[in-house]
Amino acid sequence: MSDYTAPVRDMRFVLNHVVDLKALSELPGYDHAEPDLVDAILEEGAKFAGGVLAPINWAGDQEGAKLENGVVRTAPGFADAYRQFSQGGWNGVPFDPELGGGGLPWAVTIPLTEMWNAANLAFSLCPLLTQGAIDALEAHGSDELKAKYLEKMVSGEWTATMNLTEPQAGSDVGALRTKAEPRGDGAWLIQGQKIFITFGEHDMTDNIVHLVLARTPGAPEGTKGISLFLVPKFFVNDDGTLGERNDVRCASLEEKIGIHGSPTCVMSYGDNGQCVGWMVGEEMKGMRAMFTMMNNARLSVGVQGVAIADRAYQRAVRFARDRVQGRSLRPGGTGAIIDHADVRRMLMTMKGYSEAARAICIYNAECLDFARRHPDESVRRIRQGMAELLTPISKGFGTDIGVEMASVGVQVHGGMGFVEETGAGQHYRDSRILPIYEGTNGIQAMDLVGRKLTLNGGEPMRALLADIVATADIAQGAGDPAVQAMAGPLAEAADAAREAGEKLAAMLGSDMNGAGAGAAPFLRLMGLTVGGWLMTKAAIAAADLVEQGADDRPFLKAKIATAHFFATQIMVQAPALARAATAGAEPLYAIDDDVLVA
Amino acid sequence: MSDYTAPVRDMRFVLNHVVDLKALSELPGYDHAEPDLVDAILEEGAKFAGGVLAPINWAGDQEGAKLENGVVRTAPGFADAYRQFSQGGWNGVPFDPELGGGGLPWAVTIPLTEMWNAANLAFSLCPLLTQGAIDALEAHGSDELKAKYLEKMVSGEWTATMNLTEPQAGSDVGALRTKAEPRGDGAWLIQGQKIFITFGEHDMTDNIVHLVLARTPGAPEGTKGISLFLVPKFFVNDDGTLGERNDVRCASLEEKIGIHGSPTCVMSYGDNGQCVGWMVGEEMKGMRAMFTMMNNARLSVGVQGVAIADRAYQRAVRFARDRVQGRSLRPGGTGAIIDHADVRRMLMTMKGYSEAARAICIYNAECLDFARRHPDESVRRIRQGMAELLTPISKGFGTDIGVEMASVGVQVHGGMGFVEETGAGQHYRDSRILPIYEGTNGIQAMDLVGRKLTLNGGEPMRALLADIVATADIAQGAGDPAVQAMAGPLAEAADAAREAGEKLAAMLGSDMNGAGAGAAPFLRLMGLTVGGWLMTKAAIAAADLVEQGADDRPFLKAKIATAHFFATQIMVQAPALARAATAGAEPLYAIDDDVLVA
Repeated sequence: MSDYTAPVRDMRFVLNHVVDLKALSELPGYDHAEPDLVDAILEEGAKFAGGVLAPINWAGDQEGAKLENGVVRTAPGFADAYRQFSQGGWNGVPFDPELGGGGLPWAVTIPLTEMWNAANLAFSLCPLLTQGAIDALEAHGSDELKAKYLEKMVSGEWTATMNLTEPQAGSDVGALRTKAEPRGDGAWLIQGQKIFITFGEHDMTDNIVHLVLARTPGAPEGTKGISLFLVPKFFVNDDGTLGERNDVRCASLEEKIGIHGSPTCVMSYGDNGQCVGWMVGEEMKGMRAMFTMMNNARLSVGVQGVAIADRAYQRAVRFARDRVQGRSLRPGGTGAIIDHADVRRMLMTMKGYSEAARAICIYNAECLDFARRHPDESVRRIRQGMAELLTPISKGFGTDIGVEMASVGVQVHGGMGFVEETGAGQHYRDSRILPIYEGTNGIQAMDLVGRKLTLNGGEPMRALLADIVATADIAQGAGDPAVQAMAGPLAEAADAAREAGEKLAAMLGSDMNGAGAGAAPFLRLMGLTVGGWLMTKAAIAAADLVEQGADDRPFLKAKIATAHFFATQIMVQAPALARAATAGAEPLYAIDDDVLVA
Repeated sequence: MSDYTAPVRDMRFVLNHVVDLKALSELPGYDHAEPDLVDAILEEGAKFAGGVLAPINWAGDQEGAKLENGVVRTAPGFADAYRQFSQGGWNGVPFDPELGGGGLPWAVTIPLTEMWNAANLAFSLCPLLTQGAIDALEAHGSDELKAKYLEKMVSGEWTATMNLTEPQAGSDVGALRTKAEPRGDGAWLIQGQKIFITFGEHDMTDNIVHLVLARTPGAPEGTKGISLFLVPKFFVNDDGTLGERNDVRCASLEEKIGIHGSPTCVMSYGDNGQCVGWMVGEEMKGMRAMFTMMNNARLSVGVQGVAIADRAYQRAVRFARDRVQGRSLRPGGTGAIIDHADVRRMLMTMKGYSEAARAICIYNAECLDFARRHPDESVRRIRQGMAELLTPISKGFGTDIGVEMASVGVQVHGGMGFVEETGAGQHYRDSRILPIYEGTNGIQAMDLVGRKLTLNGGEPMRALLADIVATADIAQGAGDPAVQAMAGPLAEAADAAREAGEKLAAMLGSDMNGAGAGAAPFLRLMGLTVGGWLMTKAAIAAADLVEQGADDRPFLKAKIATAHFFATQIMVQAPALARAATAGAEPLYAIDDDVLVA
């Protein structure tokens, strides 16, 4: 029996009533993404996530991946599940049908990504990284490389990795030292060590395609001197068969707090001077290619946060329904702890944050789709700007609340939550990587403030705030009192976001560090505001449907209640966050480094 | 080399300038607690914590305690450290000198408790539980039992346990089923199974004294039918030597998220019908004795939260000073990540919460001391009420921020934080039990709202708010602009707390569930407000000392800066919390149980 049920109903609701799946399916190339077909895909995905991935999640944590004589043995069931995953076509969902992909919009891919990650975060990292590598290779690779590798990466026959980090080069990618020397025949000899390489080595596929950042001879210091290389584990013959093994190996695995099912490898390239790679894109343009990999990955990682929050929520609800403890004050209660107001608050908090962050990520994905496919250039530009503005919010807010809600999930379980066998602890441990990788949330916040706030002269931010205010106005006139009650807090949050945004933008020229000082609270403020906005949109749509006598009233009423709770009890933190966001750098540097510990 | 330095300077500052150690040392029985002596004790404690307990913390986590053939082998170094701990007299610090205790005030004990727990949380649970058992036995035990057990418990020669929980009886202690039958000679035969028994079995001492809640024949259901029994692991002969082994054993150990060095035992009493215990206090009055155990334990657990927050903070500062990554915008920066505004914000957040929660706990302890020792009955009553009001805040706020700051600590480390060897992850895992045990934080919040808010007709709450407003007035007139800037937010927080408190108190008669619904945000609101108040007091005192030309200006300036940051960027969440606290129960029950997962 599975203990994870993908929230298909909420995903469908967001797709149809918060974003516009119908309009998406009218874009060139997305015409097969009809709501009915999307429904069917989501239902199939839910079956796979609940039936195949969720049941091996626990073993993945307890047994983990193991390195034995240079070979990584993945956790029980992982290799078989991966075969089913790629055979089912799930690996290629968003990619070009000519490469064997499903050609589906990102707005449909993202809910599927949530399902995989909620069911099994450690497993799902493998396809997530392959996706990023496909994006990079498709955008920047030579025809020859694409012909040799892309189809098998899209199908999932081969997996891929992203090799950025070195011990001295984490957030500071530009500090990397891995070298690439020309071999004379167009290929390159790669030498260096990379750390934190997810699924850098495993036993699930015949080959692994490593994308590796390295420095060519005479390249300048920093990010400007970096190029990207494709380094296969096994060489690929011209007929597509596998040849010799390349000089690349997994030197060790990290012992981590969580995601034990995902081997985090130290990768050694060229121990014997025989590691061969091929350049992807132009020399010294590796950072551009890397950002292609990272951009969608950032949205996907945000979704991982949503996934964990929802998985933890589902587990907590189930426990709270079953666990009888004490007597509550709820009239006609069931006797289980779900009756207690405080437990109820924890569950509503989890539900509210999960749904808000899910809506942000799906809206972000929809913007990407419009930016890619809409025939009108100005629509593409506006949507591209909006997607870029939203990406750090999706990643930062989604993953922060992933960690926080996993912690609340443990709390709902009481003492049992601290015992590993309950499973709540796995989410708490697994989630902790999410605010760190694919750019720490501090970096996301700086990206939001330093680049996105003033992107295109501030157009996306202005458009977003205008949309929010328009929704607040509609809510103000709503017939449903719960929806109406959301209007005030939403307008207040929008004001706080505008004011803080303007002050931060004004600092960018003269006081960059002051802007950086406010970045983290500003990101949270934006997450609450955008989340509260999309929840308000959802509540307005749900109230309309109720009035029209739609089926599924309990779900629609729940949507309104969750949105109301989120807007009136959580989003109300916005003004306080604006104060912190605009306080400037000085309070952070008032204490000398050497007296920080006193 | 130790990686933990007890924050003696801050502790001393709180004792001398936020609470009144001088006045404490003038109370009968505390006359030896002169500031100079206390200084020396804190310095000695710091040495022990840093030199003996901290170095074995990591092994405690990695190796953990192990059960082998009914014997629990504690982690490497634990038994030896425990011997040094009890030989050093640390176990008996707050207890009656006639029993061999140190006779020191709780206000001095609590900083020491923080040191032990920051250095080694898993280890320190053992003496913490012994302390609670001593309190209970001292208050409720017969002279015979006291004579036989107390001195060895005070010295630490024997440890003690608290046996409340059973699988069906966690927060609902009244549901327990363990039985006690009279043996006819004044002793009782105990039969039942207890879970989550911390250090229920170990190899650090010759004997273990179990305090066990059980039900006597014909006792009524619920908490009214519960009695407390002392059950030694080995019987004690009249000459104090050890006799036969009692019929009690450790059946298994829990596999937990953290505190692996602390064996969490399933204890089986009377498998062979031969488990003998002696009643502590009167029959059916077990809950009273239990609350004696729990009350000080709740404050101590709050301090555990402070301890973890500070330990995580110290580790994060050290990492941030050493780790070079990227270039910051800080003028004249060192090149390490401590330069980055966002890292700085994380560190200031950790420092602010830690110091605020520490001040709350020490003030709470001071109130306990005055309540016990002051000659004037009305002072005792007022201080007792204040201590009772503060206890759920110390526990709930202290442990919540313990978890949250441990999480921030991981974040400061970036990818390295997710790797176990860094040690940041241990705090993240260890801390997660704190909001759960000794009464979940939901129970603390209900205690605060349901009992403490209206205690003595609301006297303590009114007195607290009056004190806070008085401090805000002083800050308003302060010469130091940073101190003055705290006045507004403090007055605002006090208003929010007053308003929310009044509304919740008004609900108590008519709408208990509405009061329960607001309890958790109210507890947080009170934590921020009381913490911000004591930080403001500290800042006022520090500014006065600076003006008087005191030594240690860097420390005093840091105190002001930390208080300013806390008051103006963190405590400002108070009004939003008041909104959530007073929203009533309805929003939490608007969704039917069966559509909570949608």
